[in-house]
Amino acid sequence: MPDISPLPPGTTIGILGGGQLGRMLSLAASRLGMRTHIYCPDPNSPAFEVTPHKTVAAYEDETALAAFANAVDVITYEFENVPAATADFLAARKPLRPGARALSVSQDRLAEKAFLSSKNIPVAPYRPVASPEELESAITDLGLPAVLKTTRLGYDGKGQRVLRDRAEAAEAFAALSPKPLVLEAFVPFSQEISVVVARSLSGEVRSYDPAENVHRNHILATSTVPAAIPPSLAKHAGLIAKAIVVALDYVGVLGVEFFVVPGESRPTLLVNEIAPRVHNSGHWTEAVCLTDQFEQHIRAILGWPLGDPARLADVVMENLVGDEVNRVPSALDGLTQPHLYGKLQTRPGRKMGHVNRLLRPDQP
Amino acid sequence: MPDISPLPPGTTIGILGGGQLGRMLSLAASRLGMRTHIYCPDPNSPAFEVTPHKTVAAYEDETALAAFANAVDVITYEFENVPAATADFLAARKPLRPGARALSVSQDRLAEKAFLSSKNIPVAPYRPVASPEELESAITDLGLPAVLKTTRLGYDGKGQRVLRDRAEAAEAFAALSPKPLVLEAFVPFSQEISVVVARSLSGEVRSYDPAENVHRNHILATSTVPAAIPPSLAKHAGLIAKAIVVALDYVGVLGVEFFVVPGESRPTLLVNEIAPRVHNSGHWTEAVCLTDQFEQHIRAILGWPLGDPARLADVVMENLVGDEVNRVPSALDGLTQPHLYGKLQTRPGRKMGHVNRLLRPDQP
Repeated sequence: MPDISPLPPGTTIGILGGGQLGRMLSLAASRLGMRTHIYCPDPNSPAFEVTPHKTVAAYEDETALAAFANAVDVITYEFENVPAATADFLAARKPLRPGARALSVSQDRLAEKAFLSSKNIPVAPYRPVASPEELESAITDLGLPAVLKTTRLGYDGKGQRVLRDRAEAAEAFAALSPKPLVLEAFVPFSQEISVVVARSLSGEVRSYDPAENVHRNHILATSTVPAAIPPSLAKHAGLIAKAIVVALDYVGVLGVEFFVVPGESRPTLLVNEIAPRVHNSGHWTEAVCLTDQFEQHIRAILGWPLGDPARLADVVMENLVGDEVNRVPSALDGLTQPHLYGKLQTRPGRKMGHVNRLLRPDQP
Repeated sequence: MPDISPLPPGTTIGILGGGQLGRMLSLAASRLGMRTHIYCPDPNSPAFEVTPHKTVAAYEDETALAAFANAVDVITYEFENVPAATADFLAARKPLRPGARALSVSQDRLAEKAFLSSKNIPVAPYRPVASPEELESAITDLGLPAVLKTTRLGYDGKGQRVLRDRAEAAEAFAALSPKPLVLEAFVPFSQEISVVVARSLSGEVRSYDPAENVHRNHILATSTVPAAIPPSLAKHAGLIAKAIVVALDYVGVLGVEFFVVPGESRPTLLVNEIAPRVHNSGHWTEAVCLTDQFEQHIRAILGWPLGDPARLADVVMENLVGDEVNRVPSALDGLTQPHLYGKLQTRPGRKMGHVNRLLRPDQP
């Protein structure tokens, strides 16, 4: 029986990762009267600007990790690629929330798909690929087009190739191997949606309304809420998200990405991937929910009751990628709430901030 | 003609004062991609926990002030009692927003009342009091009961005495003098309301809906929005607030407290006091407005366009004073958004945090 007594105001929360998600988690923790300590190897981490407590060290540096664990009361992370050895080292010293199981499942596409399938949660057909022969066989099974992906460390379109014909297969295999790979059937989806769900230490589960996501160049461009889907499908997405956090005995906020696949009678859902952390497609919650995803995550890892995820208005979140950040402040209007990440350098493809724009009935 | 080009993301904002208002301003500035530097004499200032940049020094320390001015791009403050010499010293080096005029007017009750009266803004009848004889004469003019106040440095009921009869007058004068005093007529008000108003560098003015305030032991206990007043009175309060910021050539957020005085045909408004800063009675804006008062203030002092002050829901803000803070997290429910200030010591009468509770039609 785990200790589920709530951590009090004044608790120091250790956060692994100093990017925008760590920064926003720190800001939310400060609103709840907590202290934060950011651990990140990059000395220019944007999250270092929102707390006086930091560790600049590699994730494999056990001396630094031990000192960090000693300085904090509970530990969380902003990214799913925390090395397993790091997670185990820290979890032996202080509560690590979400736990190591969520990391091991979500770090590896094959493990994730096997986990989801074992819980009868639908995913796109897939085959592990360790050799050109296995790739040939997988193509025969799944057909073309299909998507060849590394099983680990892919994000924003990195580590994947679309295969349209067999001639592309050999080249793609050569480009991505010798990393372990997975071939995924191409899903003729009509929409991408996502659900941000939270589970508390006592097992309470709350999910936000699904967002409809549009990607540009494999990077999330916009999330619009409500998604243009039937209410029954929105409810079903929430139930799948709940099943995932319950099955993982999860504590914190988790993002679930879905494909909406048109069907003869009605659309169905496939889970594309899960992320054991606050999620870019949940940034809209800061503008229009009493409890946003960042506060919800902090409440959960503190062992506090969750907040209400109810939405007070319709909204669209737009990422500011690369020099799109220069639209702020010149292109701001009153209905737009900007959130910038304080990154020192603007680079193409780099997420620099986002804006939440209220969608009013009279201002579509 | 002042320079009104907007300051860019990455600007360092200097904040005088390290209490909860400075802390909340810093959090809002971080959301906009800014850096903050907190200046406060108290080494245990709660705002020091939300930025790595701080100066611990007296407000009269010109060496420290000069270094602070050198380290920042624009300067603001969380409290109206910034010494005039400090304000002048800093304003000569970097933009100080709001400016020194707002400070000089609001630091002194007599100057404030004279200013308001000169703009035909109604205030309670008052008389300056420098001697027992002047107090006698003022009582004759204004009648009893009346309130004797120090002209400077009063807050949360400190520095004032209610006079019910002439016998109390001598004792009150002895207790409060030799500070300059003012006698204010007792106002038979039915409600206290306040308006938080913002003016941008380019002269744009936006105000939030009036809040209805209840005090306990001279400390703000709750702010409820909407206030239970006629729409015409709410509109009138907004117009008075606008007149004040325009007359002061003000930049930033300012709080205006009003008494609602019942009249034979309709209620009227008297201005009780103004505060050239974000205001406790505006903390509700964080929960239910797209742009809260803290972001609004930061936008204004950066020379950015203001955000929309529209309110998405009804709300009540409740201060957590002294050990009331211990209600968090045990008494939290889903509809309550807590905001704690991270103060190390709980003391009676000390503001430790607040909660915003959503008022839903079905949950009164």
